[in-house]
Amino acid sequence: MATLRVPEVVPSPSEDAEQLRKAFEGWGTNEGLIISILAHRNAAQRKLIRQVYAETYGEDLLKALNKELTSDFERIVLLWTLDPAERDAFLANEATKRLTSNNWVLMEIACTRSSHDLFMVRQAYHARFKKSLEEDVAYHTSGDFRKLLVPLVSSFRYEGDEVNMILAKSEAKILHEKISEKSYSHEELIRILTTRSKAQLNATLNHYNNEFGNVITKDLEADPEDEYLKLLKAAIQCLTYSAKYFEEVLRLGINKMGTDEWALTRVVATRVEVDMERIKEEYYRRNSIPLDRAIAKDASGDYEKMLLALIGHVDA
Amino acid sequence: MATLRVPEVVPSPSEDAEQLRKAFEGWGTNEGLIISILAHRNAAQRKLIRQVYAETYGEDLLKALNKELTSDFERIVLLWTLDPAERDAFLANEATKRLTSNNWVLMEIACTRSSHDLFMVRQAYHARFKKSLEEDVAYHTSGDFRKLLVPLVSSFRYEGDEVNMILAKSEAKILHEKISEKSYSHEELIRILTTRSKAQLNATLNHYNNEFGNVITKDLEADPEDEYLKLLKAAIQCLTYSAKYFEEVLRLGINKMGTDEWALTRVVATRVEVDMERIKEEYYRRNSIPLDRAIAKDASGDYEKMLLALIGHVDA
Repeated sequence: MATLRVPEVVPSPSEDAEQLRKAFEGWGTNEGLIISILAHRNAAQRKLIRQVYAETYGEDLLKALNKELTSDFERIVLLWTLDPAERDAFLANEATKRLTSNNWVLMEIACTRSSHDLFMVRQAYHARFKKSLEEDVAYHTSGDFRKLLVPLVSSFRYEGDEVNMILAKSEAKILHEKISEKSYSHEELIRILTTRSKAQLNATLNHYNNEFGNVITKDLEADPEDEYLKLLKAAIQCLTYSAKYFEEVLRLGINKMGTDEWALTRVVATRVEVDMERIKEEYYRRNSIPLDRAIAKDASGDYEKMLLALIGHVDA
Repeated sequence: MATLRVPEVVPSPSEDAEQLRKAFEGWGTNEGLIISILAHRNAAQRKLIRQVYAETYGEDLLKALNKELTSDFERIVLLWTLDPAERDAFLANEATKRLTSNNWVLMEIACTRSSHDLFMVRQAYHARFKKSLEEDVAYHTSGDFRKLLVPLVSSFRYEGDEVNMILAKSEAKILHEKISEKSYSHEELIRILTTRSKAQLNATLNHYNNEFGNVITKDLEADPEDEYLKLLKAAIQCLTYSAKYFEEVLRLGINKMGTDEWALTRVVATRVEVDMERIKEEYYRRNSIPLDRAIAKDASGDYEKMLLALIGHVDA
């Protein structure tokens, strides 16, 4: 379900490093060469290129890219080149800082990564920021947002598909009660959403739908201006149907209606090696225009070329 | 700082497995033989013995021990034989069950294990119980206990020794404010205690002591009958000075004054390979009697022999 296209014969990491070095040298930067290499290597290959580059030229490849590139193109290339766990740690850290604070990014990382991958992010966060992820999230949030986000980023959900139907029924009832009372940050509601396995939650929410006549996300639309309620609803979507969530983020990002200007870059960088094919399907289904065409209309230059290459556009 | 004594020449795992099999056979069980083997093998060696035993005799060694042994002796041998992460997962699961519920055990595991070891416990919990640790803790606790215990068991604290002194001062002030207001479960107090690194917390609590004239644990003695307050105080002790905490658990356990009848067994099984030597020092300092003599007076039979062998008593 990934859209990454890696050539059948891949150059060695040292050849790639050498070509990248060439792209940086001389008068002007060869952006096309950078795209032709980095946009067509998987995470393990990019990691090796970064290692060999540092060994050969005594400089971190990311530093070199940072010096050579600018604006949106720079951001997508840097994010993409990072190791997935490091990238998420970087995005999460940015999301806890005052000027770039973004609860959605934190929620997205916590709810759409596998338990193992989320733990890798927490390890990468220690290594890079000398702090824990939950420590920064707890420190930089407050009130209902903190109550939801800290357990989300600290979770290590069970990933088996066993489901307890009796529990699903009783917890669907609790969720319905709390939502009816508008107690959207009640500790029992938070407990259920932040600790149960995705399979168990799915059974609970299906029962909710069957028993109470509405999907839960519909019942959470009581106040469309409430930022916490929007985040809660999005968290449920991420936990149960993430392709749909990402489609919506892309739709709002591309049409510049969303508040999250880096959304397009982030979703592409983080989903290309995971489920971008599924997201493209959802996008087409909802917007009647293929994602690559929508991006081509919205973005331009090297930024556009990089995005299209990553989502598997064949001419890129 | 471990008290485990492993012989210089260790028999092969298959020899050990064979000897254990012999100890189970015939009329009566040879408890002395079991002690002479298991009490003198480290975690890696016990794991191999268990593997070889299962391969050779088609039965889990733990099942065999369970059939052959009884009461306190059975419990110490079983707990000890388990892999440390599996053992903690087992103890934590027991502590979330109604009849054996014990918030202290949960707090102890969450606060005295390293971040990496606590994560291993969470992995072992998935594997054995098909659920997550935090899921069971959240489900089986409520109110202030839940507010404290869920973030504690979900934590993955940074373990470097970097300290931010400005933060230590500001957070010492927050802690003092909340304690003065008797807001012992205030979200800020919980945040600080459950997310900061042990080094950072230590700096904060030292500043608390310097600035406000009392150690924090003293200020938490306002109501000695309050179970939550006692747990909170113990959590701080575990995070900052665990040998002292374990000394106290042993003291109350041995003198049968504590409510936790399995304390002696648990502390010995979990600390022998970690810091039992330090705990013995603390014990002697506080009780004027060496731990081995106190145990010899309190326990008897094979249970006593096993405990003494584990804590490094030379005649055992």
